Amino acid sequence: MIILGIDPGLATVGFGVISSEKGKVKPIDYGVILTPKDARFPDRLKMIEDSLIKLIAKYKPDEIALEELFFNNNAKTAINVAQARGVTLLTCVKYTEKLFEYTPLQIKQALTGYGRADKHQIQSMVTTLLGLKSIPRPDDAADALAVALTHSNTSRFSSGFGIR
Amino acid sequence: MIILGIDPGLATVGFGVISSEKGKVKPIDYGVILTPKDARFPDRLKMIEDSLIKLIAKYKPDEIALEELFFNNNAKTAINVAQARGVTLLTCVKYTEKLFEYTPLQIKQALTGYGRADKHQIQSMVTTLLGLKSIPRPDDAADALAVALTHSNTSRFSSGFGIR
Repeated sequence: MIILGIDPGLATVGFGVISSEKGKVKPIDYGVILTPKDARFPDRLKMIEDSLIKLIAKYKPDEIALEELFFNNNAKTAINVAQARGVTLLTCVKYTEKLFEYTPLQIKQALTGYGRADKHQIQSMVTTLLGLKSIPRPDDAADALAVALTHSNTSRFSSGFGIR
Repeated sequence: MIILGIDPGLATVGFGVISSEKGKVKPIDYGVILTPKDARFPDRLKMIEDSLIKLIAKYKPDEIALEELFFNNNAKTAINVAQARGVTLLTCVKYTEKLFEYTPLQIKQALTGYGRADKHQIQSMVTTLLGLKSIPRPDDAADALAVALTHSNTSRFSSGFGIR
């Protein structure tokens, strides 16, 4: 099974593609979609859609897992990131009903068994689980791989868990 | 010129279509797109896209004006409404580059010359300006007509004003 993990954002959308067969996971690709800050906001949304469509067409994931939004203190940024996440979600649901989402807490618990793990511990687990030689860069790509791995680890127990 | 005004939302997206020729405005249609609360969130985003595509195909607006998000105190609601607005914006920008947005303050000032006008004053102005027999219902449709009228009134002076 191919799993696409996504760390939603506006300036940077992280993605991580893994294969998961009988509990064995392998990395396929990871990286980020970038949108330029000087582009018009609706055009940036369109860039995200375009890039995601290409990514999905390339890897044809069986299931897609997204990280839930982390609320920061900057309302304007949060609202714009949320608008971009809406576009990401729309693009994914037009491709598959097999969409899942996980909170940062769920990701930490799934990968380290510990809800207060820090970013470095998560990244080390991602690196180890996927047998990578170094920590995936940038952070958003590592985060996207983390959500894909979380889905791979937990979906056997939560097959009916979708997005509401 | 045909103007589509939109009051973005998740459960309810208001729309108002008007014609504006040489300063004379006429109502063409108004109403709301509704998405059921018991549907999955990504499916609700898809319903908004589908309905907007139909609306745009039906009226072929020359320009589209959207109300900016009003931040309320419920972060979860605000984030979901923002995700829905992202989908609305994406759908519109795929149709036209002539996209504009106005804050609630700009709408109040454009329609009443008074930034602290209340909802009823705005609705009365919408009713009067469009020569309607009664206040348009529901509120979201009236709000969408208000943003369309705002655009009609101010776009002559702010033709370069787009969305960033």
